[in-house]
Amino acid sequence: MHTFADPLRRALQVAPDRPAIVDQGRMFTFGEFAGRCERLAGGLYGLGLEPGDRVAILSGNCHAYIETYLAVPAAGLVVVPLNTRHADAELRYALEDSGTRVLIADRDVGDLADLVERVVTIGDEYEALLDGADPHPLGQGIDENTLAGLFYTGGTTGLSKGVMLSHRNLISNAYHWLTTAPQTAEDAFLVMAPLFHAAGSNGVLAAIWCGSLQVPLNTFDPGVALDLIETHRISMTLGVPTMLAAIAEEQAVRPRDVSSMRGVAHGGSPIATEVVRRTAEAFPGAELIHVYGATELSPLTTGLRHEQTLLDSERARSCGQPIVGNDVRILDTDGQELPRREVGEVVVRGPNVMLGYWNKPEQTAEVLKDGAYWTGDLGFMDEEGFVYLVDRSKDMIVSGGENVYSTEVEEVLYQHEGVLEAAAFGIPDEKWGEAVHAVVVPRPEHSNLDPQDVIEFCKTQVAGYKVPKSIDIRQEPLPKSGPGKVLKRELRAPFWEGQDRGVN
Amino acid sequence: MHTFADPLRRALQVAPDRPAIVDQGRMFTFGEFAGRCERLAGGLYGLGLEPGDRVAILSGNCHAYIETYLAVPAAGLVVVPLNTRHADAELRYALEDSGTRVLIADRDVGDLADLVERVVTIGDEYEALLDGADPHPLGQGIDENTLAGLFYTGGTTGLSKGVMLSHRNLISNAYHWLTTAPQTAEDAFLVMAPLFHAAGSNGVLAAIWCGSLQVPLNTFDPGVALDLIETHRISMTLGVPTMLAAIAEEQAVRPRDVSSMRGVAHGGSPIATEVVRRTAEAFPGAELIHVYGATELSPLTTGLRHEQTLLDSERARSCGQPIVGNDVRILDTDGQELPRREVGEVVVRGPNVMLGYWNKPEQTAEVLKDGAYWTGDLGFMDEEGFVYLVDRSKDMIVSGGENVYSTEVEEVLYQHEGVLEAAAFGIPDEKWGEAVHAVVVPRPEHSNLDPQDVIEFCKTQVAGYKVPKSIDIRQEPLPKSGPGKVLKRELRAPFWEGQDRGVN
Repeated sequence: MHTFADPLRRALQVAPDRPAIVDQGRMFTFGEFAGRCERLAGGLYGLGLEPGDRVAILSGNCHAYIETYLAVPAAGLVVVPLNTRHADAELRYALEDSGTRVLIADRDVGDLADLVERVVTIGDEYEALLDGADPHPLGQGIDENTLAGLFYTGGTTGLSKGVMLSHRNLISNAYHWLTTAPQTAEDAFLVMAPLFHAAGSNGVLAAIWCGSLQVPLNTFDPGVALDLIETHRISMTLGVPTMLAAIAEEQAVRPRDVSSMRGVAHGGSPIATEVVRRTAEAFPGAELIHVYGATELSPLTTGLRHEQTLLDSERARSCGQPIVGNDVRILDTDGQELPRREVGEVVVRGPNVMLGYWNKPEQTAEVLKDGAYWTGDLGFMDEEGFVYLVDRSKDMIVSGGENVYSTEVEEVLYQHEGVLEAAAFGIPDEKWGEAVHAVVVPRPEHSNLDPQDVIEFCKTQVAGYKVPKSIDIRQEPLPKSGPGKVLKRELRAPFWEGQDRGVN
Repeated sequence: MHTFADPLRRALQVAPDRPAIVDQGRMFTFGEFAGRCERLAGGLYGLGLEPGDRVAILSGNCHAYIETYLAVPAAGLVVVPLNTRHADAELRYALEDSGTRVLIADRDVGDLADLVERVVTIGDEYEALLDGADPHPLGQGIDENTLAGLFYTGGTTGLSKGVMLSHRNLISNAYHWLTTAPQTAEDAFLVMAPLFHAAGSNGVLAAIWCGSLQVPLNTFDPGVALDLIETHRISMTLGVPTMLAAIAEEQAVRPRDVSSMRGVAHGGSPIATEVVRRTAEAFPGAELIHVYGATELSPLTTGLRHEQTLLDSERARSCGQPIVGNDVRILDTDGQELPRREVGEVVVRGPNVMLGYWNKPEQTAEVLKDGAYWTGDLGFMDEEGFVYLVDRSKDMIVSGGENVYSTEVEEVLYQHEGVLEAAAFGIPDEKWGEAVHAVVVPRPEHSNLDPQDVIEFCKTQVAGYKVPKSIDIRQEPLPKSGPGKVLKRELRAPFWEGQDRGVN
């Protein structure tokens, strides 16, 4: 019914001569953009690809990325966005696991080139591919449930999974995004979060559908972001919290004209109230929207609109209400729906729920049950459907039969004046099953932080069973994923080696 | 994937205690509304119905209508909204053709009762059905492509068709409506156009999905409509042009506080510029939105937003751009897409395209080709995708090889000072194939209007081949459908009787 060609087709009708993309001095109208997409598709088929073949892209945000993201699925191929922050071993795994035939990249890919039949480098080589190609029709003969993209989660063999999203999955997300953040051809979108991330590409199809301009930000820099906002009269963007924090700081120091901004969305990791406040100050005319989702949900599932008006309420800590089109429930481990305010797993149904994990039927079966996706996030719902996340289910610590949410422990740790970064998790304990353990990075002026001092502080703040039994002080920053989530898996792993149970 | 139960489920999460419906002094929260829907479903199954059975409703707008509209499909039954303006013969046809088993009505249905197993009268009898029923779960085991409703177009045997709309069709329309007229739980919707009409029920699922209040207007009265807007702080409504004209006139004479209004949509028939202007004056804070569609499209397909800002431009005469999710094309009779500004048939693809006509495979095949719906409307598209309707394809007159759009002839006729109403159509002509003929109703002060005077006037305005060869003067109003469309079929039929070709 719906394919990736639909947004492009409408854009060609309603905005053929309007700018589709402005990228570092180059501008493409929707007419030009469509022509380039058709020739990219033609060029790829000219390399000998067959429908369903995988085309990976490893690049910062740029016009070629948006073209690849749209044209590859619209031509019946499968796009594989690769995380530019992943290590070679992770990229190697993704390329091999997906069976990628062509890799489009904005950089020297080194030995990774040996894993694919052809590397197309963005720039002259990419342009030559387009120049020499016959246009290939888009959207023809593609069923809406066809695989459109494979989105790899982090990690190497065994840990990384290719999330299979269909045309309908991603088109549904465009509908969901538009009900959350309505837009028109008058809008201009700053593509700020990396496009390889589900949150970064979240708005691409919707922007094209509406005939809105997209301005890709190649490498995140708060000053460049603000310059682009001023120059192109950007009205909307979506970033991860660390980006918003940096932009707000830059805008406070060197203000640009950001009067065109009417919507700032963020997702990917929890946001501090202070960052929301500063972002709202930086963009006084904009609505702040907190979105929560997962790659497996294409990605949106809840949205907190007008976030800046809720700062003093409990709801500032929520990730919003189910977005129209998402059936979000809080279930116990037996799949029974829990009453309001009881903590359970967040489970989602809707046309945006992934097809499954590529070649991983067992891992798929663990999270997809009767068409519902079990997010692995623990949370509760309040009386008006606002969802509050309390932890990743695998990050919950069960100590002496009590559930301890690692985030609650971390919140207390952060209240200690000497703590810059903190992560809490469970480690094996003969007596309690699991014991609460924390890793803390001290602030520079507290480099001699004493773990016992921190433990004593925690005892004054929370129940004894939530207080870390042990704390490691670490001078380097905690390991983090792209969107800024602390990789607890890496911190926790050494403690669980050789144990007959564990989490990963 | 999606069923009618989804909007209700979300409303129960985000707005359980907010008012869902206020109807003549009665208020139901979403929690109460959901309970009533479940008991209505239970009551209907208690009457012996089986999944897929048809339940018709013949009623003015009221809470029971909204309950029936939602609960019947959500319970796996099929709702058949009947046009209260249809004659008994037309209603009889719809009931028989659909095989309706239960009829819910707000009036004495006379002999029609003999056609069904059970009539449930809204009021005590309807309430008793609910009171005595066990709640029936909604949305369970229903595929999204299941038939949800049968919407009968006018006419008796052979002319009337039951438009089959699935759950997905109507849910898609809710998405489409929300991208056109975004709304939230803070909105309140006046259900003004009759719910039996596709335009009248257009907003029902979207309102429930968003947790918005709906206030049904039982019988159209401009004063009552304005009172409800003032009392319930209504923010949005949708009406047919004649309703808006009457409301604007009433508001000019006896103004109410309509400051809560932020959206007024209209559709169903063409609107005069003057009515748009007056409606904008009556609701200075509201965006005017012209929507165009067809029952077969569930119903929306194009939308003209901010209409009042376009009054002095060509686009005031358009019905807007394709709504996100609709693939609207202008095709020639061979199915080839026409260049901008060339007139062809409006053809639509999308998840909102009906399943077909009930038990009418031949008529279905005439309008549904490769999943696209041929609307029968002739129009063209401008450079930015605005669609301009010029005529119904069956109303186009081919005279001496020239295409004459009846609407163009009518526009000229209306410019004559003595013309109150006018309809132009083709009648058989030995020389020209078809000749342009018109029926004209004179203004009261021109009751002696001379047809020849009108013809001479037309000659001064348009090319000779477009000038009516003959004009009938008629003192009573022209026959019209519910939304105010002139029923040319009835005017034309006598001329074509006994002809071996013709249109209907």
